[in-house]
Amino acid sequence: MSDLKRLSLLSDYYEFTMANGFYEAGLADRVACFDMFFRRVPDNGGFAIMAGLQQVIDYLKDLHFTAEEISFLKGKGIFSDGFLDYLQNFQFCCDVWAVPEGTPVFPKEPILTVRGPIVQAAIIETMVLLCINHQSLVATKANRIVRAAQGRDVMEFGARRAHGTAAAVYGARAAYIGGCAGTSCTLSDQLFGVPAMGTMAHSWVQMFDSEYEAFCAYARKYPNNCSLLVDTYNTLKSGVPNAIRCFDDVLAPMGCRPKSIRIDSGDITYLSKHARKLLDAAGYPDCKIIASNSLDEYIIRDLLIEGAKVDQFGVGERLVTASSDPVFGGVYKLCAVEKPDGTLRPRVKFSDNVGKITLPCFKRTWRLFDKDTGKAIADVITLHDEKIDEGRPYELFDPDHTWKRKTVDHFIARSLCVPIFKKGALVYQSPQPAAIRDYCAEQVDTIWDEVQRFENPHTYYVDLSQKLWDERDRMISEYTGYKQTPAPRV
Amino acid sequence: MSDLKRLSLLSDYYEFTMANGFYEAGLADRVACFDMFFRRVPDNGGFAIMAGLQQVIDYLKDLHFTAEEISFLKGKGIFSDGFLDYLQNFQFCCDVWAVPEGTPVFPKEPILTVRGPIVQAAIIETMVLLCINHQSLVATKANRIVRAAQGRDVMEFGARRAHGTAAAVYGARAAYIGGCAGTSCTLSDQLFGVPAMGTMAHSWVQMFDSEYEAFCAYARKYPNNCSLLVDTYNTLKSGVPNAIRCFDDVLAPMGCRPKSIRIDSGDITYLSKHARKLLDAAGYPDCKIIASNSLDEYIIRDLLIEGAKVDQFGVGERLVTASSDPVFGGVYKLCAVEKPDGTLRPRVKFSDNVGKITLPCFKRTWRLFDKDTGKAIADVITLHDEKIDEGRPYELFDPDHTWKRKTVDHFIARSLCVPIFKKGALVYQSPQPAAIRDYCAEQVDTIWDEVQRFENPHTYYVDLSQKLWDERDRMISEYTGYKQTPAPRV
Repeated sequence: MSDLKRLSLLSDYYEFTMANGFYEAGLADRVACFDMFFRRVPDNGGFAIMAGLQQVIDYLKDLHFTAEEISFLKGKGIFSDGFLDYLQNFQFCCDVWAVPEGTPVFPKEPILTVRGPIVQAAIIETMVLLCINHQSLVATKANRIVRAAQGRDVMEFGARRAHGTAAAVYGARAAYIGGCAGTSCTLSDQLFGVPAMGTMAHSWVQMFDSEYEAFCAYARKYPNNCSLLVDTYNTLKSGVPNAIRCFDDVLAPMGCRPKSIRIDSGDITYLSKHARKLLDAAGYPDCKIIASNSLDEYIIRDLLIEGAKVDQFGVGERLVTASSDPVFGGVYKLCAVEKPDGTLRPRVKFSDNVGKITLPCFKRTWRLFDKDTGKAIADVITLHDEKIDEGRPYELFDPDHTWKRKTVDHFIARSLCVPIFKKGALVYQSPQPAAIRDYCAEQVDTIWDEVQRFENPHTYYVDLSQKLWDERDRMISEYTGYKQTPAPRV
Repeated sequence: MSDLKRLSLLSDYYEFTMANGFYEAGLADRVACFDMFFRRVPDNGGFAIMAGLQQVIDYLKDLHFTAEEISFLKGKGIFSDGFLDYLQNFQFCCDVWAVPEGTPVFPKEPILTVRGPIVQAAIIETMVLLCINHQSLVATKANRIVRAAQGRDVMEFGARRAHGTAAAVYGARAAYIGGCAGTSCTLSDQLFGVPAMGTMAHSWVQMFDSEYEAFCAYARKYPNNCSLLVDTYNTLKSGVPNAIRCFDDVLAPMGCRPKSIRIDSGDITYLSKHARKLLDAAGYPDCKIIASNSLDEYIIRDLLIEGAKVDQFGVGERLVTASSDPVFGGVYKLCAVEKPDGTLRPRVKFSDNVGKITLPCFKRTWRLFDKDTGKAIADVITLHDEKIDEGRPYELFDPDHTWKRKTVDHFIARSLCVPIFKKGALVYQSPQPAAIRDYCAEQVDTIWDEVQRFENPHTYYVDLSQKLWDERDRMISEYTGYKQTPAPRV
């Protein structure tokens, strides 16, 4: 009846074979640094919303291996007894930094960094990626849809089309962080306090001998929360007239007002305008109209441009699966290794795609905010021990086209990542989802409208400090054997 | 550490409000029939693969509500004490029929039918839909990818991009049913016996001071399972030459042969052809080449047409999220209600989209197979108590264009759905995933190539019996008030 009882083996098999290999090569305690980052925003949007961190925390704070799990691995016949003993006595001891949930984030910058023994840092890769990839995907999509709705409530109604149980439950949480008003999923309310909401299904209407009877039975039961689905037979000829009759016959004598009607098929603009007229004429201008049926940010934008009389949107499959671009491509890449003498050596991966070259070094990301407008100016990735001095002008330059430069002044510099675990001990307390949702709305407000545009948004600056640029340049030259054009110095 | 501990509240909130309403309206024990069906095959394919039934069974066989869950609902202040008592004493007592996992299925036909008290049939809707929608989506996608690979192994490598934990673990199971050889997900191996497999990550290579050293360390540890990732720096100039040196220096003296190399970036066709030549020339024609990097059925088909020398494919995000079309739109619709006198009355939903009109009546679906070729000829949906007589010619007709007719003879008729629960008791034993996978391959073989085509496949016939067509026609006429053209009688 429960879902997955244990998640310790929710890790790619090669993480275990590599970890075993590291262990046997005497590298078990060798400290490595990994960054999680992503390369592009889904839907070619201008920014993403970070989410899923709490699920990673829940996983890491109790990561251990049971006898049954050890015995399963032992049965594979390739893991050494020493390594299996290590797992049996597993004690998470890494440092973890991450961007708080609800924060707008951009391609290429580290959104989570792990520093610790390579064996541990390897094993946790899969869960770190899948939790953050999934929830950031949905939070990002939800935020787009909520922005399209221009202040109208968006309700997440997608559980039935989600990719499994966790996608439904955590997806509702992510959608709420992104700005949705609530969810259809009862369990997400119980677990995370995401308000559960809903109207009625067609089956309610079909269970009675007539639509009018079905509506009246519902109104009698829920006079203060009467929301009727009006498209089972014919929205304008049957559904809305029957709803109005029911409001007159059942609610009015009780002194109650109707809450809403829901339209789930047909042309929403046409039907909502006519339904609005019918409701207004009958004395129910306060009865809201909810629209559902394969909505997303593009359809909602169009409906509103066409003057659809919709007050609330129920959004299902296209939100919970982010169907227009359902992959959040976060990766987890080694960026530095500690040598036996304790010094950190940067590491880079080239690969055969230029876009897949990684950023070396143990790093930190800063967001620069304009002191007057409060708007975000740029993000700057630096070496971990670099500081950005708010008291002095700072010169930004494009890491690919280094002649593109801009000097900023009068700014506040905030470190994007915060410490989550120190030597394996949890040092961070996540806010409640409702607080994360408020924080998200506030932070999205710091993003210029040009970057918020759905299509062809302005590319927000994510730059490198001169020191980091130099280090990457040095490594590229070393590996490729020829010198790049040097970045002109400040 | 565990994931979702309980799933009883993984149900849309409106299911509970409706169930409470039915209960209060004295309809708690009124028997209703619901069909799950879908309207179109993802990617506009010719058929889908049924999957996810076992997860539905696990959910239903132990469905009950704890004191904590009841108390959460009570806190909402809208549920009656009688209904909460009902939940406290909940005892699943529905009949359930379903198509066995691994079976090819087609739009409009019932793939799962529930008959039981409306309160119960309503509450289980969300879980029934989400489990089957999710796993059928992935099994269907996997089957397309496996067919594109023409006998080469396809490995599911997508956990890190899956939509949450359940999507990773059950997605791997569904991909295996659809024909994949294995998965990267260790937990799916432990839980379902889906073989876990993998090679190495870039971090393995980066942990050592040179690629050659990294390869040798791996080869020494896994001499009989030596699979090396060759694109960390430069596939042809560094990766493959270093792999060959390592095979020569480490494996050869041990009398071992290499297993494979993996290419994860760059142009797979170009790189694989050149890598193949280098390996062959070095005396390793038996070393397989694995390709990964955002593959799907279209890219794999093209790679093979171009003569890429790939022996195995690792497919990640595009499989586990079915990214080209990530929604399996199964719905669960009321089709009949038992009147107090015990007779079943058909129910239909019209809505304002013609495509959303439902099929009324308690039904059964038959698949007719050609006795000579073994190929599937057509599916026929009948009333539940109708029989198709294999001894006599059977006339099929298109339910929308009734003049399109075809008489079949010399066929075997098989009922698609099998009993799963009888009055709440489980009467079905699921085969193991490996057996379901074999059954799936065998059943896909009964589908004509024309229906298997990726683009614009031939539309497989899903017809109605004359009796069912007549009943639907009668109901449409009754509701719309005018008579349709009658179907010419046999």
